Amino acid sequence: MASSTLSAPVMQKGIHGWNPCARISSNARVNSHRTLNCPLSMSTVRKPLFFRAHPASINPPHVSASQRYSLDTKKFPVSCAGKFQLDDVIESQQFDTDILNGIFEVAFEMEKIEKNSPGSNILKGYLMATLFYEPSTRTRLSFESAMKRLGGEVLTTENAREFSSAAKGETLEDTIRTVEGYSDIIILRHFEGGAAKRAASTATIPVINAGDGPGQHPTQALLDVYTIKREIGRLDGISLGLVGDLANGRTVRSLAYLIAKYKKVKIYFVAPDVVKMKDDIKDYLTSMGVEWEESSDLLEVASKCDVVYQTRIQKERFGERIDLYEAARGKYIVDKKVLDVLPKHAVIMHPLPRLDEITVDVDGDPRAAYFRQAKNGLYIRMALLKLLLLGW
Amino acid sequence: MASSTLSAPVMQKGIHGWNPCARISSNARVNSHRTLNCPLSMSTVRKPLFFRAHPASINPPHVSASQRYSLDTKKFPVSCAGKFQLDDVIESQQFDTDILNGIFEVAFEMEKIEKNSPGSNILKGYLMATLFYEPSTRTRLSFESAMKRLGGEVLTTENAREFSSAAKGETLEDTIRTVEGYSDIIILRHFEGGAAKRAASTATIPVINAGDGPGQHPTQALLDVYTIKREIGRLDGISLGLVGDLANGRTVRSLAYLIAKYKKVKIYFVAPDVVKMKDDIKDYLTSMGVEWEESSDLLEVASKCDVVYQTRIQKERFGERIDLYEAARGKYIVDKKVLDVLPKHAVIMHPLPRLDEITVDVDGDPRAAYFRQAKNGLYIRMALLKLLLLGW
Amino acid sequence: MASSTLSAPVMQKGIHGWNPCARISSNARVNSHRTLNCPLSMSTVRKPLFFRAHPASINPPHVSASQRYSLDTKKFPVSCAGKFQLDDVIESQQFDTDILNGIFEVAFEMEKIEKNSPGSNILKGYLMATLFYEPSTRTRLSFESAMKRLGGEVLTTENAREFSSAAKGETLEDTIRTVEGYSDIIILRHFEGGAAKRAASTATIPVINAGDGPGQHPTQALLDVYTIKREIGRLDGISLGLVGDLANGRTVRSLAYLIAKYKKVKIYFVAPDVVKMKDDIKDYLTSMGVEWEESSDLLEVASKCDVVYQTRIQKERFGERIDLYEAARGKYIVDKKVLDVLPKHAVIMHPLPRLDEITVDVDGDPRAAYFRQAKNGLYIRMALLKLLLLGW
Repeated sequence: MASSTLSAPVMQKGIHGWNPCARISSNARVNSHRTLNCPLSMSTVRKPLFFRAHPASINPPHVSASQRYSLDTKKFPVSCAGKFQLDDVIESQQFDTDILNGIFEVAFEMEKIEKNSPGSNILKGYLMATLFYEPSTRTRLSFESAMKRLGGEVLTTENAREFSSAAKGETLEDTIRTVEGYSDIIILRHFEGGAAKRAASTATIPVINAGDGPGQHPTQALLDVYTIKREIGRLDGISLGLVGDLANGRTVRSLAYLIAKYKKVKIYFVAPDVVKMKDDIKDYLTSMGVEWEESSDLLEVASKCDVVYQTRIQKERFGERIDLYEAARGKYIVDKKVLDVLPKHAVIMHPLPRLDEITVDVDGDPRAAYFRQAKNGLYIRMALLKLLLLGW
Repeated sequence: MASSTLSAPVMQKGIHGWNPCARISSNARVNSHRTLNCPLSMSTVRKPLFFRAHPASINPPHVSASQRYSLDTKKFPVSCAGKFQLDDVIESQQFDTDILNGIFEVAFEMEKIEKNSPGSNILKGYLMATLFYEPSTRTRLSFESAMKRLGGEVLTTENAREFSSAAKGETLEDTIRTVEGYSDIIILRHFEGGAAKRAASTATIPVINAGDGPGQHPTQALLDVYTIKREIGRLDGISLGLVGDLANGRTVRSLAYLIAKYKKVKIYFVAPDVVKMKDDIKDYLTSMGVEWEESSDLLEVASKCDVVYQTRIQKERFGERIDLYEAARGKYIVDKKVLDVLPKHAVIMHPLPRLDEITVDVDGDPRAAYFRQAKNGLYIRMALLKLLLLGW
Repeated sequence: MASSTLSAPVMQKGIHGWNPCARISSNARVNSHRTLNCPLSMSTVRKPLFFRAHPASINPPHVSASQRYSLDTKKFPVSCAGKFQLDDVIESQQFDTDILNGIFEVAFEMEKIEKNSPGSNILKGYLMATLFYEPSTRTRLSFESAMKRLGGEVLTTENAREFSSAAKGETLEDTIRTVEGYSDIIILRHFEGGAAKRAASTATIPVINAGDGPGQHPTQALLDVYTIKREIGRLDGISLGLVGDLANGRTVRSLAYLIAKYKKVKIYFVAPDVVKMKDDIKDYLTSMGVEWEESSDLLEVASKCDVVYQTRIQKERFGERIDLYEAARGKYIVDKKVLDVLPKHAVIMHPLPRLDEITVDVDGDPRAAYFRQAKNGLYIRMALLKLLLLGW
């Protein structure tokens, strides 16, 4: 599907006029494929839902209660209140704060669905194709678990690059046209930047970008922001320390991009000289009114932050300069000393995999949020599958 | 299962005498594995069903209405009218026109099942093993989608050649005896001609050949014939242009073999000299009373055909003679000029993957049928799974 | 989960006191993940169930009826009588005869479930992750079939060793912490001895060892003992001939270890000199009061045994000494001559894959039990999945 950057998450009118529960019948493309009745209770208008604060979170005085959300899922268990604004999920630029908040509400509903037995069946009869041109087992399993937790089914290929057809010279577009005949949604991982956009503009079914080369990995960006929301209870007014490989890390760049959409955000960059944050993101933050500063004192930054986001120094970027890699790698380690100065309500995040940039003795601390963060990837992906296939 | 070439699609008697809905209980081998009640409405005798013409098809004057089919699926939604004549699907020689027409009727029912929500459950509780000794993602995903669209489940192995046991010297027969213990039907792709037949004679559950080396790929042949039926509305009296690599293309050879079973068929061969159709098929066509001629004028052929079936020149067959490959490759291209002369009711087909032997600007024409053809592979495979596991 | 060697299969008290059907709510770890109601009929106390003798088995006069089991599955279709004693299945040492007998009863119930349509749904909503760091298609398909036969779903990775994260240096423990967020039970195959134990002590969900390097493969050991039980009707008083590569065969060593727990067992070792049974097992058998002797006369041993357990000579252990391999390989072959002297009630077993150490003409004899043995792996794995996820 063609990706679109929406300026406001307004309810779109379907081809027969807007109908709150007709997100499928108003979605001509999905509709051409299969006709669904709303499997769930319905509400005629999508009400502003509220997001419940994380029980462990501390509510800093400068954040009023009304800035946070609490989710009334009894009234809207899984609502059927309209078509999702996006046809595909291709890049972080598609999301404004209203869509983000909506997705986060659905992700929060998904946490409950996932914890309860015997699982949901809202995607029963739907078939997801995970079309991976490079292996990424973590991302693949997360998407496949998401689909199965909602009762859907999965077709998997991890070696699409050696896909006989691709190897014989078939274009990505032709492959997409074939695979869309076998499935209802495509999760694409590709080695080339821009591949997901090309796939989406060909496909008549939704496409989710699960990472395309040096380009985008929007579900990772969403799960990072969702984790801050879940752990700290808010996104406005957040103080964020980004640590490690800021030059090459796709993750921290996307996170900085998305978090800048919220109010009164403060960002600290803590990176070895060889992998400092690049000017494009700094300029963007400035243009968005986000305060940022660079620091070489991890302990001081940690003492002031709601979130310390550690990243791995990527050895593969250093080529033969192993000496530079080794110097950069050991410079900023999150360990017990960091925990000692970290505020009680704050958390440590990491996109994983982690080597030794967070020491293992940190794992037991309740503020070590990185495995919860990985789990949040499941909820975000469940939410996106639900939204793209069923609508709000 | 042992494959058998049936001369007539008569209802076979089960071990307890023929019972129209006892196709499972009369199938001792399947029966030994699991006992099923007919999950569907029943009809005591398999009536001649009629196949509805493709809405877009044009009914040439020399084809009377009675020669075509229209499917009364309300009376026989998915019928339970008897055991399928075949225990396995191994080679094109197993099919006469009565069985073909029956399979096509079921495939047409499958189109409806696939388009409707929330999918069928007629194969719920059945487990299909895709045992692939060489990767073929397109074929594999098509079979797996077919099984899942019918509510069945799938066990997958794409690297059966490196299957620890095969690598250690286990015979195909022993592997089949093990895998049949874990599943209800086996889809076998193998690098050796004849492997499917060996597997079928060992297995006590149905085997479908998904391609065995230079040998057979019968579901591809079936989907090609089904596509002509669906697109043109008939098979008798068809004019067919086979274009491209006719010497090496397993697909065009099988198609010529099957289409010869219909009446008043005319075939044009359009191939570069180095990859002309071989004499065995020509002789067979002559013996079957099929008119054929060779031509080097693609435009003239296209102007007279119901179907132009283009194929890829297979580079791998030319070895070091890249010059010959390049010459052959560029000789017959289906492009806008071919569309200009192609009759309105006619279609372009291609087994895919396609390189540049059909130009991309052809894709948007309604007569470009190759992606619909790929999709028909899904319906044919759904039909075969249903027939082999449940009967008619 | 931390593995534990239990001395007696007593019902454990849950956190709220023992409740016969509260095996899930008393299992805090599983409970933290999902709350289940007992999906099945309940019995307040786990009664001693009886195991029905294999119809084909001959009941030797020295085995009284009370020594065997007959399963009254009408009264306890799939019982809900308490938590399983084990949190994980890691090594053969976890099993005493009471647990073994209990598992075998459940495995026997599973045979019936597997044979009946349309399959069971007792594990519906559960998700199993097969995390294989080395391929083992047979074992993987067996586990995946087991899960699907019970209505559960599967996430698969066969190339976890090249798992981007593992390749980047992620620890097994971190991988487990991620994967446990996506699934309800992990089946681990690893190339390092001890890996399953490490995984189990990290995971908050059950782990089953599907083979870790030269270490353990406990489900193979269980299926071997179960096969003897099913085929011969008893385990006490059994005479067992272990043939082939006794030095390197993990299978025969585990079988000897487990069978020693039963009464009046007699074992004959028949092995080429270069691959004789090692002293550790011999000493262990002696300490357990098991009578054993070495023999070089396969025919004489076969004439006295209830079970002849043949194994493959493992070429890969001989390095460059192909001459030694060839000599060892041809020395003890199970063929028609062995069948001639084998008692009528006795069986031939083999862990598979088999090369030519059992000739193909033996396969048709009803005493050739090796493919039934492979199938029993399915039932044992179904039983373990049921027990670990739902309890007794």
